[in-house]
Amino acid sequence: MSVLRVGIIGVGMMGADHAARVAHRSANAALVAIADPDQDRAARLAARFDGVRVISDPMELIADPQVDAVIIASPGSVHEDQVLACIVHRKYVLCEKPLTMDSASSLRLVEAEAVAGAPLLQVGFMRRFDPEYAQMKRVLDSGRLGRTLLLHNTHRNKSVPNPDFRSEMIVRDSLVHEVDVARFLFGQEITSITVLSPAPTSHALPGVADPQVSIFTMAGGGMVTSEVFCNCQVGYEVRCEAVAERGTLIAGRPQTGLYSTVAGAEHGSWGGEVHPDFTTRFARAYDLEVQSWIDASRRRQVVGPTSWDGYAATAVCTAGMQSLATGEPVTVDLADRTLVGA
Amino acid sequence: MSVLRVGIIGVGMMGADHAARVAHRSANAALVAIADPDQDRAARLAARFDGVRVISDPMELIADPQVDAVIIASPGSVHEDQVLACIVHRKYVLCEKPLTMDSASSLRLVEAEAVAGAPLLQVGFMRRFDPEYAQMKRVLDSGRLGRTLLLHNTHRNKSVPNPDFRSEMIVRDSLVHEVDVARFLFGQEITSITVLSPAPTSHALPGVADPQVSIFTMAGGGMVTSEVFCNCQVGYEVRCEAVAERGTLIAGRPQTGLYSTVAGAEHGSWGGEVHPDFTTRFARAYDLEVQSWIDASRRRQVVGPTSWDGYAATAVCTAGMQSLATGEPVTVDLADRTLVGA
Amino acid sequence: MSVLRVGIIGVGMMGADHAARVAHRSANAALVAIADPDQDRAARLAARFDGVRVISDPMELIADPQVDAVIIASPGSVHEDQVLACIVHRKYVLCEKPLTMDSASSLRLVEAEAVAGAPLLQVGFMRRFDPEYAQMKRVLDSGRLGRTLLLHNTHRNKSVPNPDFRSEMIVRDSLVHEVDVARFLFGQEITSITVLSPAPTSHALPGVADPQVSIFTMAGGGMVTSEVFCNCQVGYEVRCEAVAERGTLIAGRPQTGLYSTVAGAEHGSWGGEVHPDFTTRFARAYDLEVQSWIDASRRRQVVGPTSWDGYAATAVCTAGMQSLATGEPVTVDLADRTLVGA
Amino acid sequence: MSVLRVGIIGVGMMGADHAARVAHRSANAALVAIADPDQDRAARLAARFDGVRVISDPMELIADPQVDAVIIASPGSVHEDQVLACIVHRKYVLCEKPLTMDSASSLRLVEAEAVAGAPLLQVGFMRRFDPEYAQMKRVLDSGRLGRTLLLHNTHRNKSVPNPDFRSEMIVRDSLVHEVDVARFLFGQEITSITVLSPAPTSHALPGVADPQVSIFTMAGGGMVTSEVFCNCQVGYEVRCEAVAERGTLIAGRPQTGLYSTVAGAEHGSWGGEVHPDFTTRFARAYDLEVQSWIDASRRRQVVGPTSWDGYAATAVCTAGMQSLATGEPVTVDLADRTLVGA
Repeated sequence: MSVLRVGIIGVGMMGADHAARVAHRSANAALVAIADPDQDRAARLAARFDGVRVISDPMELIADPQVDAVIIASPGSVHEDQVLACIVHRKYVLCEKPLTMDSASSLRLVEAEAVAGAPLLQVGFMRRFDPEYAQMKRVLDSGRLGRTLLLHNTHRNKSVPNPDFRSEMIVRDSLVHEVDVARFLFGQEITSITVLSPAPTSHALPGVADPQVSIFTMAGGGMVTSEVFCNCQVGYEVRCEAVAERGTLIAGRPQTGLYSTVAGAEHGSWGGEVHPDFTTRFARAYDLEVQSWIDASRRRQVVGPTSWDGYAATAVCTAGMQSLATGEPVTVDLADRTLVGA
Repeated sequence: MSVLRVGIIGVGMMGADHAARVAHRSANAALVAIADPDQDRAARLAARFDGVRVISDPMELIADPQVDAVIIASPGSVHEDQVLACIVHRKYVLCEKPLTMDSASSLRLVEAEAVAGAPLLQVGFMRRFDPEYAQMKRVLDSGRLGRTLLLHNTHRNKSVPNPDFRSEMIVRDSLVHEVDVARFLFGQEITSITVLSPAPTSHALPGVADPQVSIFTMAGGGMVTSEVFCNCQVGYEVRCEAVAERGTLIAGRPQTGLYSTVAGAEHGSWGGEVHPDFTTRFARAYDLEVQSWIDASRRRQVVGPTSWDGYAATAVCTAGMQSLATGEPVTVDLADRTLVGA
Repeated sequence: MSVLRVGIIGVGMMGADHAARVAHRSANAALVAIADPDQDRAARLAARFDGVRVISDPMELIADPQVDAVIIASPGSVHEDQVLACIVHRKYVLCEKPLTMDSASSLRLVEAEAVAGAPLLQVGFMRRFDPEYAQMKRVLDSGRLGRTLLLHNTHRNKSVPNPDFRSEMIVRDSLVHEVDVARFLFGQEITSITVLSPAPTSHALPGVADPQVSIFTMAGGGMVTSEVFCNCQVGYEVRCEAVAERGTLIAGRPQTGLYSTVAGAEHGSWGGEVHPDFTTRFARAYDLEVQSWIDASRRRQVVGPTSWDGYAATAVCTAGMQSLATGEPVTVDLADRTLVGA
Repeated sequence: MSVLRVGIIGVGMMGADHAARVAHRSANAALVAIADPDQDRAARLAARFDGVRVISDPMELIADPQVDAVIIASPGSVHEDQVLACIVHRKYVLCEKPLTMDSASSLRLVEAEAVAGAPLLQVGFMRRFDPEYAQMKRVLDSGRLGRTLLLHNTHRNKSVPNPDFRSEMIVRDSLVHEVDVARFLFGQEITSITVLSPAPTSHALPGVADPQVSIFTMAGGGMVTSEVFCNCQVGYEVRCEAVAERGTLIAGRPQTGLYSTVAGAEHGSWGGEVHPDFTTRFARAYDLEVQSWIDASRRRQVVGPTSWDGYAATAVCTAGMQSLATGEPVTVDLADRTLVGA
């Protein structure tokens, strides 16, 4: 396959970002089609590129023989049908997280792919491609720090403008990244999750539990703490500290980037700017993720997070949303991986 | 009172450190007496200073009219009697943590001091005197970051040589510092504590839960996570991150101190040395604590952590040791502060 | 121009890196041809890509109508002829530094381009594309720190394996980057340069002045200090501190990247790995430089460092090599920019 | 000598700071007398301590048999006479820098002390007592980084309110610290100094060269660059980077202390406060310097920077003030150390 012809479904903030990435920053790929319920938005975006068709029906885009591979950046509620269509049409697909809205539907995708007989699906857990997270994985796997014991995650967003935002979304849409990071770095499943609700910030919508503190227990007995804070007012901050038997690692330490001192009214200050959002913090990770997906698709392979990774993360978050209601630990029940052929 | 004449009870690592501090690094104080069950150790230490008497019976040291104030660095199990004697003899006393072995005995000291009618007791929570913790308190209290929502603590020791070391000691002797930090920075009591036991490091004694992860709930609904790891093999690392409504603070960030790059076999490295133990990490805090105690005692005041602070910390740790057995949250029951006159 | 067809001349370390960049990591470009005196090396490299021709004569590559644009990564001594051929054939060209071996030859290229009547040449000063240097430029130009007063540069390489390495090369091949950075950040020409030779490291070849300390005076009176150290044994370290009237900026601070603590024989350590060489330190900058050059070439523009920038840097380094011999300041004589039409 | 009875001459900002240090933060010393031309200022300060006499004539204070040791914090122009009186009366003396106003007068003090037959004088180069500088010295002396090749110093003050401030004072009163640091860390004399004047900041007084860039050549061929900037508007920043054959060291890196993120109008920021002045940045160094001087004086020793160190620093600064006028290197002529008995 000389050049991978890519179609994108859903061109909100994330999908539009991917469109520019495929068209302007990726080798050996061409953006050929986009689909979005908002036809005007789709047309406006398509006009920014050469030779990109707007296709009204996402299923038509998937079925189009001129489309080799699909990026799904639509809302999670329509992922199941769209990914399934990709599998049916044997299209390589990069699906943004969450894979689907509950674990049963995610499992159906795992099974469908198993039936199809070839891996086709990569789930958009882009942190695995961030250079520091990737290096952390290599160092932990090298064994030179001994066994991994703990992870401590920090995940902060400046604010959530969505007036329909609910506590569960913090688990399903934000914490899901820490779920994948924990499974990735430990190389183990999560067996239990507790989601705690401290007194909320006054910047959260009424009734929304923000920030949240979560605890995962790993299959090997390791433990993971995560703070997710969606209205921290400052900016986007994502950090991960791994504690192993003979040392520790931190990815995403604060105070990176250009450093400045500045005169002040009274005291001068030192410091820099916090990332405004994930598009700048993980710009490199997204670029590497998409290029890696393009390269693998051209070789007819899947090298990133798999359908099973998407399913397992959904299952953990489903349990996490239950825990959120009570503050009690909830056991994660996963299907037998060997039975579903994953 | 021109010069404060200080006696020290217990001259193990901590007491010997305090002896040198009083004699060599503190203004307006004189080390005049030491007491220790190990008479040889006491004699050897006394010989390093001018005019320091060895008194075999700690109660005699406390009662001695030539001793104005006492530092208690003996094992926690004898603290109650020794502090009580100090109160009875109206001696200013700086007692190392833990105040006593259980909350009932600590409460008795609170009551005894109330009966005595004047504050005499300061508990050795020296982190309050660390410049970064102290500044953190000032910034949080200033309100310019809004209400405090969360604390995340890290507390690591290189190793524990004690062959009798047990899981409970991590709560009572180490986590007790995070208990005080949480109460200090929030300015609130802790209402509930959970102590979790991840799979232990292979460097811990058999049966010892190390590391531990703890969760405190504050009276105002705030939450505190703490990792305590007593056999991390690396060195001494103590860190505290406060998360408030409009910003965050970190005391004890990694990578402080002299920075170095060094040629290596393959890759060169950047970095520095981790503190070997608390005596170097908190050298300044201990100096400031003891000087502050000397100054206050000469003015017949107590300005550091009080008997109530010592009692409340003991009560939280007592509940924490219960939680350690089950991993379930345990409610902290405190006496009515107004009833005991504290 | 739909896809930019790129030919590369010289496929040593730098050229091979660019080949992979164009073929595997750049959008809207195709690597179509390479030329190198070492035919075997060229053939081996070409075999790693699809449809890349090996052309023995670089002049033939430049003239080839199937080649739209050329990257020159050959030794500096042959740059003049190759760049001139690109100008003659109206090919967009990205030429690695140094532009040429002396200022007279560089000036001839400036004049040739002026005669051609359209900008075609970009010089490979990739630091301008490094995110931190680029942000530094924006902040300094914003004026919110006031006028720029000083720059302090650090530029260290692990070692130089070349047995023919001479002191002048440190000026011409390494310091040339600081020369461009100074001109870029100040937006001014350099009027005088002093190159000092401290007692050399024992890791340098006999007779080679390494490290070197240089001082530039800018047209506006600002000053620049630079340490260049080519055998520092540690790794690759490049840093720039700008001092302005109301604040400072540092790009490339030490201690970036993944952070680790590790148990040691005696003292544990904190830190990370130093970049081994420029390919990792400036990986992002090279990617951005080449993508930007591809995009601009497709729009028939030049947006990076120009032929004049290449000439001016060469002129400063020529003066610097004179200064190296005496340690005395040498005035930089530049052609009249308006006369040469640059 | 049980308690060292200290008198202080000159109680401006520095002397008043030392008064509080001796009285409130130092062991085994008593502040007994102060002298200052401003009698009111002296009386007000004395009133803050117990038993401190105000003596109008500094020579009387030095001669007073109730005074064991003297701290001189008066203007440099009267140091020679006062130090000489201390030597004559065999009083241990800690004299703030600069030792005297020119090298001839400093040399007379070296000779006077030699005649007295015992070391009595310590010069107030307190950076030698800063924990990071002291550790840097130990690491360099250990030899594990190889021979020291270069130092790069940064020395910034927020502003200079003095309306009589002149360019020479930057050399004599500020750069003198870098002069001592260079001699201390290399363990060698400085043989030549160049002081360069870039275009000055608009915050400097008319005609004052600020910032300045200096170059020292060491006796062994090593080289030292120093930026001194007295009106940087931001705060107090002092940094030293040592470059050795197999690694580097940095003392006083930026971004130390309490770290904060704060919400902003647009972009949130990370960072902290810059030290306002030397009293906070070097608080610990001053405490350690004075305690060390007290301890040594009680043992009838001098352990800090000696009279020779003070003389050599003055000689270098004298040459530096000459260089400031021309920008040309000036050779430093030192007396023959063996001849003067130092």
